[in-house]
Amino acid sequence: MSHYQPKLDDVQFILNKVLHAPERIAELPNFAEVDADLMTQVLDEAGKFIGEQIAPLNSVGDQVGAQFKAGSVTMPPGFKEAYQAFWQAGWASLSTATDDGGQGLPAVLESVLYEWLSAANHGWTMAPGLLHGAYECIKHHASDALKEQFLTKVGTGEWLATMCLTEPHAGSDLGLARTKALPQADGTYLVSGTKIFISGGEHDLTDNIVHLVLTRLPDAPAGPKGLSLFLVPKWYADGTRSAVHCERIEEKMGIHGSPTCVMRFDDARCWLVGEVGRGLNAMFVMMNAARLHVALQGVGLLDAAWQKADAYAHERRQMRAPKPVGVKGEPVDLIIEHPAVKRILDTQRAWIDGSRVLAYETGLALDIAKHHPDAAKRESAQRWCALITPILKSACTEQGFHGASDCLQVFGGHGYVSEWGIEQNVRDARIAMIYEGTNEIQAIDLLMRKVLADNGHGLQAMLSELSASLPSGNAHTKEVQDLFAQLNALTQDAVQVNTRSEGAVTLSWIAGDYLRLATLALLAWSWVRIEEANDSLSQRWSSPAKALRAWVLPEFGMRKTLIQQQFAASTVTV
Amino acid sequence: MSHYQPKLDDVQFILNKVLHAPERIAELPNFAEVDADLMTQVLDEAGKFIGEQIAPLNSVGDQVGAQFKAGSVTMPPGFKEAYQAFWQAGWASLSTATDDGGQGLPAVLESVLYEWLSAANHGWTMAPGLLHGAYECIKHHASDALKEQFLTKVGTGEWLATMCLTEPHAGSDLGLARTKALPQADGTYLVSGTKIFISGGEHDLTDNIVHLVLTRLPDAPAGPKGLSLFLVPKWYADGTRSAVHCERIEEKMGIHGSPTCVMRFDDARCWLVGEVGRGLNAMFVMMNAARLHVALQGVGLLDAAWQKADAYAHERRQMRAPKPVGVKGEPVDLIIEHPAVKRILDTQRAWIDGSRVLAYETGLALDIAKHHPDAAKRESAQRWCALITPILKSACTEQGFHGASDCLQVFGGHGYVSEWGIEQNVRDARIAMIYEGTNEIQAIDLLMRKVLADNGHGLQAMLSELSASLPSGNAHTKEVQDLFAQLNALTQDAVQVNTRSEGAVTLSWIAGDYLRLATLALLAWSWVRIEEANDSLSQRWSSPAKALRAWVLPEFGMRKTLIQQQFAASTVTV
Repeated sequence: MSHYQPKLDDVQFILNKVLHAPERIAELPNFAEVDADLMTQVLDEAGKFIGEQIAPLNSVGDQVGAQFKAGSVTMPPGFKEAYQAFWQAGWASLSTATDDGGQGLPAVLESVLYEWLSAANHGWTMAPGLLHGAYECIKHHASDALKEQFLTKVGTGEWLATMCLTEPHAGSDLGLARTKALPQADGTYLVSGTKIFISGGEHDLTDNIVHLVLTRLPDAPAGPKGLSLFLVPKWYADGTRSAVHCERIEEKMGIHGSPTCVMRFDDARCWLVGEVGRGLNAMFVMMNAARLHVALQGVGLLDAAWQKADAYAHERRQMRAPKPVGVKGEPVDLIIEHPAVKRILDTQRAWIDGSRVLAYETGLALDIAKHHPDAAKRESAQRWCALITPILKSACTEQGFHGASDCLQVFGGHGYVSEWGIEQNVRDARIAMIYEGTNEIQAIDLLMRKVLADNGHGLQAMLSELSASLPSGNAHTKEVQDLFAQLNALTQDAVQVNTRSEGAVTLSWIAGDYLRLATLALLAWSWVRIEEANDSLSQRWSSPAKALRAWVLPEFGMRKTLIQQQFAASTVTV
Repeated sequence: MSHYQPKLDDVQFILNKVLHAPERIAELPNFAEVDADLMTQVLDEAGKFIGEQIAPLNSVGDQVGAQFKAGSVTMPPGFKEAYQAFWQAGWASLSTATDDGGQGLPAVLESVLYEWLSAANHGWTMAPGLLHGAYECIKHHASDALKEQFLTKVGTGEWLATMCLTEPHAGSDLGLARTKALPQADGTYLVSGTKIFISGGEHDLTDNIVHLVLTRLPDAPAGPKGLSLFLVPKWYADGTRSAVHCERIEEKMGIHGSPTCVMRFDDARCWLVGEVGRGLNAMFVMMNAARLHVALQGVGLLDAAWQKADAYAHERRQMRAPKPVGVKGEPVDLIIEHPAVKRILDTQRAWIDGSRVLAYETGLALDIAKHHPDAAKRESAQRWCALITPILKSACTEQGFHGASDCLQVFGGHGYVSEWGIEQNVRDARIAMIYEGTNEIQAIDLLMRKVLADNGHGLQAMLSELSASLPSGNAHTKEVQDLFAQLNALTQDAVQVNTRSEGAVTLSWIAGDYLRLATLALLAWSWVRIEEANDSLSQRWSSPAKALRAWVLPEFGMRKTLIQQQFAASTVTV
């Protein structure tokens, strides 16, 4: 079994030729020294590091897994060494501000880094995956005293961090959380209770672990507004151990290299982060970035599955492929010659590269929203992030799982056997459809909270900008504009349905279909942009474009019909 | 975690009220004593046995798995005892002829038995799952001397059997097989070589194991026509051990309770079964029944996943479900109240029950094709089996996996954790899309070998019969007839495309879509039949019917568009 190998050329084509990332980064004063050469150099080094040090640990991570014993977790062989090399080389702090010990590079580069890391070893990548969010949270909400102790340690990745949100009865509905924090005379708090599904709650990768815990003061109101955020490290500065304990780790379908911990807080001394009752708010600042990273896990795992299946399809021979009458050929063909196999592989490339355009654009938008001197550009980038994030999170993780399963199919019976590694991709990919907000919650977020909040005007404005960015000469530009028009029209229908007394119910039934409609329209846009950049007419890019139109886009009409049927069936009572 | 519990009422509704199985069985002289009461009694006992003895072993089968050591395989705790109880109670020989020590009951009852067994414990069920095919193969092709030794032992399940087909370089393409059988002076043969993916190649469930091995004589022609079938037991009648060895078992994504063996034949003494060069033919007699059983695995695993998810959705509360304006309700609702969850559950029921109608009808057709006194009825049943088998195998296993994954989603993060058992369903279900002919091969079989072989006339005749069986009063009858008309029209287009020089290539690209079209049309037919039988208008049956029309059938239009695009794009050169 060969390991995942990041392909710099593919990514650079999209960053440089499709999205013109270097030129757009150059407009941001913050990144004055970042040019195309530096970006190439960083990604080239990242690709080598990942291919050589992280990818080879993927299989052992799955087979040995994280091991729990008497409150401690031992990570799979090689994980600790790889992590130490990772943070010390500065990969953990790629986008951390230089003031905080980081590299101060654009978020878009970090996007590529995490896509490749997830592709190479999803389980291992869970550990550093939470760092950036914790860093931002501490930076923007913690007191100076806390920052002094924790900001650089977390920002550089010398210490890892967790997000302690979920409780047994409070999954998607964090407002139901019951853990308690009791205020003490010295300004600290004692937190007690149990949190579950804590990725990296305990491990041996770093000397310390910083926990961010969402919990409730004794007199807090019910629901989400009663939640506050607290920080408690595994080890305090004075060398004493906090009363935070790992009770067990879960047996899971995949990502065995990531310990999913049940954490018990026994009146653990902690500090408030941000304001009382604003705990969710403090966590939500990093939500767009976190959801983008989950989307990139989907893209990465799909690319990893594709890489394996494509290699297999080019070496395995079974049966004669269908040929035009009179064409002789071999008695046994490579399976890539069989239409069902080629269709699977080209379709996945259509998803991978189309998603990359959207995801990297979102990485750029995060940079622009933060650093662009022009307020209008910041606002447009912010709108893009708000609208695109739930779409990407849902669509890329959906395809990450289903597409990896399709790639498994290319191997026939061998795909089901662990030895080839492809079934691990499928198992690992499944979690991304669930965590960081289930895909069903993303769909509701998109339609009810993002699109309908301003009666579809934000979406319409975004689609107009996208439409204007298309080349007028391309034969497919009109097709994309037509999809956008249909999406806008259906959005206006949804605005109407939303005024009906049972509108919220009707819209909830079809929120997932609406998200798919938007996904397909955006994917179609991505591919016209790719084709425009593909001036050498390379089959590497033209084959997936063809597959997109033949096998992927017809879903648009189906979703539209299905939504319209529901709109027509729901009672019209304004 | 609760175990799978077969629901007799659901199955009886379909067998008795929808399909009128008892009346149709009564037309077969072979089953003169089989009436509705006997069928009920058999299924009631089967359900109890499965719920009490087989289902509780599902989790240990997955977690402990079959263990390999020095050529021997130890099955998970409880597996052997359950198997001994199973065959001794006569379940293994349900449809075996009474002359051969069996119960002589209809195949349709065996279909239900295996659906429930797979739902309860797919890994365990792999062991007896191959018995019936081996029994039929020996019965119809082996010499009297071989029958004398093996027919009753295999027919009753006292000994288990294997099918040794696949080799490392010969998966779907059995014609590439390289194992060799050398004829000996005494009429026996010595077989040598390696076979892989042999389910139950070695285990401790029974005293002996009978291997049916597809291999080649030294002077055999290349390709499938050079294959002959041989029988070699683990132990010969004189108590000596044959030279058949299990080299190792595979680590797999799922069905850990079933040892997937690499078998080495070291000049093992064996006997020819059937004629030289007719090995594939001898195995193909049981292919329809075997593929029906794999389809039923898909149905069963989906029902098991649904049962778990439905129970969870009725006890888990998260967030307020959307409500019409003015409706107060609870601040936190059961998740079954959330449209995205209810949609998943109702959609799976639409698939499960619709597939059951088609699968049990196929079980009946196997009985009718074999035993009906009227040749025309036998022929019609035979046509049904030929056309429906690839559709069922592909569609039910596809939905078994994807639907189980949808059910996992209902659990949120808990679905990813092994404790709840739902992720095992997803992993177990994945293999059924691959073995017994991959779903891609089923699609080619349907379109190229079944439908186009007679220019679509057989399909048209079958659809006419189905159409005639629909109630004229039902509002949805016309919809189904319209789908049938579209399917027939598209089939005629395919007949035309098949006359083009590159027709075979074009048709291979869309064979999977064509199979889906046929699936959806048949599912729509099933549900009109179900609704007709649902005279009490129970929501148990009317909700899934609604879900089918809202969420499943719109795919028909998409597949049609997609196929028509390909037909239009392919060059017209007759």
